[in-house]
Amino acid sequence: MSTSAAPWTDVPSTIGDVCCPGTDCELLAKDRAEDLALVFKALADPTRVRLLQYLAEAESGTACACHLPAALEISQPTLSFHMRKLHDAGLVDRDKRGRWVHYTVRPESLQRVRGFLDLQVDTATSRCC
Amino acid sequence: MSTSAAPWTDVPSTIGDVCCPGTDCELLAKDRAEDLALVFKALADPTRVRLLQYLAEAESGTACACHLPAALEISQPTLSFHMRKLHDAGLVDRDKRGRWVHYTVRPESLQRVRGFLDLQVDTATSRCC
Repeated sequence: MSTSAAPWTDVPSTIGDVCCPGTDCELLAKDRAEDLALVFKALADPTRVRLLQYLAEAESGTACACHLPAALEISQPTLSFHMRKLHDAGLVDRDKRGRWVHYTVRPESLQRVRGFLDLQVDTATSRCC
Repeated sequence: MSTSAAPWTDVPSTIGDVCCPGTDCELLAKDRAEDLALVFKALADPTRVRLLQYLAEAESGTACACHLPAALEISQPTLSFHMRKLHDAGLVDRDKRGRWVHYTVRPESLQRVRGFLDLQVDTATSRCC
């Protein structure tokens, strides 16, 4: 049995082997991280990724539930399941018009997660430590 | 027992009750949707959201594993678990320097998901149907 560390190990082999000074970066607030993770979780499925893109490209970001299953080759119950996940994460609004439900993308929700992903990497201004 | 439909139901009560003409939007390619969903899945956890933000704000987008557990109040094994998820999704690189592993955010991966979230909603130019 080998005792060599796996390439991704984070455990030092000797105590006190500190590589660099400590940092003092400000962490993202826990509740904000939890909100973002909920939205990312709603998008952690290829069908929901495609549904969101389909809605966004439709006129006014709105599509009727009657068109969605055919486009994605899914059943109505499967559609309901996925749309509920997107709705619960705040990514879409739903609106009953007569006998059908229409779904509309909420651009402000997209903006919120996009804002997080605008993390600036490797620039002098973004350095906190 | 009520027979009224739930507000999110997508099932029409009568056949042929079509609300609007069919659409002809182009769907996102399935393999691209799967790739994006994998990245979103890696971010579907508040600790990983905070780790990514912490790394991005560190100098050169890099931080040593020795600082991360203290900042997030997690153990080294928990850190390894989360960093492996971020690494497997292509969001960070890892680099062993002496006895410690350094992690670096990959800006091109952030750009890829940000590009998807740049979905244009409710503009004349984005209408495909």
